[in-house]
Amino acid sequence: MKLTKQTLNQRTNPIYDALVVGGGAAGLSAGIYLQRYLLSTLIIDKGKARSFWMQELHNYLGLPPKTPGREVLKQGKSHYLSLDGDYLNAYVEEVIDEGETFSVKVRIGRNNPTYEVFRTRYLIAASGIIDHLPQLADMKNVFDYAGYNLHVCLICDGYEMRDQRVGVVGASESSLQVAFPLGWFTPHITLFTHGAFEVSETLRDRMTAAGYTLNEQPIHQFLGENHQMSGVELADGSVINLDAGLISMGSKYHADYLQNIDLDYEGGNLVTDIMNRTSHPRIFAVGDLKVGMNQVVIAAADGALSATQIWRDIRRQEDSRRKPVAA
Amino acid sequence: MKLTKQTLNQRTNPIYDALVVGGGAAGLSAGIYLQRYLLSTLIIDKGKARSFWMQELHNYLGLPPKTPGREVLKQGKSHYLSLDGDYLNAYVEEVIDEGETFSVKVRIGRNNPTYEVFRTRYLIAASGIIDHLPQLADMKNVFDYAGYNLHVCLICDGYEMRDQRVGVVGASESSLQVAFPLGWFTPHITLFTHGAFEVSETLRDRMTAAGYTLNEQPIHQFLGENHQMSGVELADGSVINLDAGLISMGSKYHADYLQNIDLDYEGGNLVTDIMNRTSHPRIFAVGDLKVGMNQVVIAAADGALSATQIWRDIRRQEDSRRKPVAA
Repeated sequence: MKLTKQTLNQRTNPIYDALVVGGGAAGLSAGIYLQRYLLSTLIIDKGKARSFWMQELHNYLGLPPKTPGREVLKQGKSHYLSLDGDYLNAYVEEVIDEGETFSVKVRIGRNNPTYEVFRTRYLIAASGIIDHLPQLADMKNVFDYAGYNLHVCLICDGYEMRDQRVGVVGASESSLQVAFPLGWFTPHITLFTHGAFEVSETLRDRMTAAGYTLNEQPIHQFLGENHQMSGVELADGSVINLDAGLISMGSKYHADYLQNIDLDYEGGNLVTDIMNRTSHPRIFAVGDLKVGMNQVVIAAADGALSATQIWRDIRRQEDSRRKPVAA
Repeated sequence: MKLTKQTLNQRTNPIYDALVVGGGAAGLSAGIYLQRYLLSTLIIDKGKARSFWMQELHNYLGLPPKTPGREVLKQGKSHYLSLDGDYLNAYVEEVIDEGETFSVKVRIGRNNPTYEVFRTRYLIAASGIIDHLPQLADMKNVFDYAGYNLHVCLICDGYEMRDQRVGVVGASESSLQVAFPLGWFTPHITLFTHGAFEVSETLRDRMTAAGYTLNEQPIHQFLGENHQMSGVELADGSVINLDAGLISMGSKYHADYLQNIDLDYEGGNLVTDIMNRTSHPRIFAVGDLKVGMNQVVIAAADGALSATQIWRDIRRQEDSRRKPVAA
């Protein structure tokens, strides 16, 4: 059931079989599988998964191209709740390993928050990442286009950008390297440093050889209307016309709540085995938080894998949950 | 485009970047990603993927529970064709490794078949498996219920069978072992050998301890109506009432066309790396044919992974496919 501050005491279990941090594609898919394995599950979601911002999903088998990401999440949440899973809008602050269980400290509500501790046997970290965006004086101007034709994922939207004039906004020299795989889809590429960092001669030469343009001025604002970005206005007032943008400024990894647990990372990503188990036997990581490709369909598969492994673990301990009624 | 015997000469490429054998969930997802990577693709499908038979998909994120498997395939095929991928209904007979390319011999049509050879740089084996079914005098009687409440996949449908009286039909002592994980969902289990094999004392003792019933008579027919199986009639005329069935008789692996290529197998499954590459650098295996869980959402993710790795391979060789038009 959907839990609230008021209905917390109606939760189904004092100790959940699995607590899922994050209600995006990976977390919801895990929740659906877990409930169908008859495992008690709580999904804690802070809202606004990365896929929530995707206005058009173009590559998810079974859904028409241009399905909004939020539609997948809405369907998944309703699916999960129909299987009697518990769901709470809240923010996970800290996880403490108690040996057989974890205690999970959660903040509920933004204003006058209350705090609650949940206990669980297994933890699934499905809290994902969120893309860093260019910092402009007017951030609303960025949000007007982000997720429309101001893209954050080359693999998701390279096809949409084919033969277009694309502006790539990076946060470092290495983040601008995405221009080269983008060059598979279009030769018309302008790179923006937003005045924030220097570019080496080596990269300049490579860009010139590829026919790309480098622009090192700060961006004043994106131009456009109806969520379609049509170019950028630079600090000096000059305008560069574009058909699309690709933001490549790195990501924030939502995993602070795991900081007191010793886990293997590769960059900001959690290292897992093929069933998505981390280096801790009772913690799984799924979706964008783990090492691998950041794709909705892969996140959904991750959820299935992690839930199945948790079921196998628990089944080995318990044998059956449906004992015959004594005659 | 959808190719036919008549329109074969209109195919888009003399040598495809990737040829996908099988138009099930894995193959269609691969095709969607490949076309979106601007790679020329041909899917060859013999029809009737395993998921085609699934009357209700209950665990696929983004689709309402009870969506028929064939709806996912229909949507996926239309999605793929909208991206200008080539598609042909035919049967792949043989694949020959020519070094840089494969030649793929295909039979088109059942009556008065014609034969055609296609060439491709990469091959994706997405041809899956199909479940062996009990052989009864009247096979229509089996098809009446298979995919409805005569299930073939414990992970997919264990939840549907919770607390039900379930008949498990095996083809060997080892195939009956599925009864124990099924016991997680229901204690009311009858195992059927269909008179086809002996059961050891060890397994008999384990079944008795679990409270399961063993039936060693041949099955005459399944009983029921409107695709809902309600029991079995045995050879001696006696009837056993059931709420559902689970067929566990092994699978046919559709990979005969690979027989002349040296590949690593585990049982009938192809061994792959995390991007689904087999032991041959230009052959990928996805979905039920590869080692791993047989789930629609995992097959769809497999398609994304294999297509991405093929794109990376080809991109390293070619750099860009969209050169600027000379001024």
